[in-house]
Amino acid sequence: MNRLRTSRKAVVADASKEAGRPAARFRMRVGRGDLISVGPGKITLLEAIEQTHSITAAAKSIRMSYRRAWILVDEMNASLKRPAVASSIGGESGGGSTLTETGMELVALYRRIEATAEKACAPDIRRLLKLLR
Amino acid sequence: MNRLRTSRKAVVADASKEAGRPAARFRMRVGRGDLISVGPGKITLLEAIEQTHSITAAAKSIRMSYRRAWILVDEMNASLKRPAVASSIGGESGGGSTLTETGMELVALYRRIEATAEKACAPDIRRLLKLLR
Repeated sequence: MNRLRTSRKAVVADASKEAGRPAARFRMRVGRGDLISVGPGKITLLEAIEQTHSITAAAKSIRMSYRRAWILVDEMNASLKRPAVASSIGGESGGGSTLTETGMELVALYRRIEATAEKACAPDIRRLLKLLR
Repeated sequence: MNRLRTSRKAVVADASKEAGRPAARFRMRVGRGDLISVGPGKITLLEAIEQTHSITAAAKSIRMSYRRAWILVDEMNASLKRPAVASSIGGESGGGSTLTETGMELVALYRRIEATAEKACAPDIRRLLKLLR
């Protein structure tokens, strides 16, 4: 899994450049027809859960409502062969949520796909950006 | 320019497969911060203008309001070094709109970028799809 975890920093760096001159952003959505199983919002939420070990704290950290975060987690877990998020109830720490191995793999693949797309398309993206003011 | 025009059929074919099993869709947006100069809606509109030679007919063919179509064309033309759409008023045919060379190049580059991204990411996309039910 480790070799999958290299793309995130690059994506964040790209995002920080967007304010000034025009830049291209790829977004990938995976689903059946209009039903989206995996998209940018869900992946960002998974990353926040990985950092906070809590769906509530994760939702807060990305300014998403707690209710919406739970719906997205439920949708994801239902559309995957194995759940992406595992939650425990109670205990000394009052329970918490962590990414499963599937969840980690999903995030890593998604971010690597974004990075691969941007790299493969870089020459044509440069050509397209040259058409802009 | 001709070598740029090969990707569209492939993209349409991919879209038709989406209803059944899960599939991945790439969408690219180009802009400064939240201001989007080029995205999937604008490119679809340009393609419709290319086919209908009319912004009104193009809007109708993709179920977009006439008002929104004009706003998108204005936004695009303003963000490009040269306009993507040229409109003529009056004449025997009552005027019309066509894509400029810049408009044709923009559409071709955009569709080729989508196709390149899907091809470059195909192995990881297959891995990701295998995580889904």
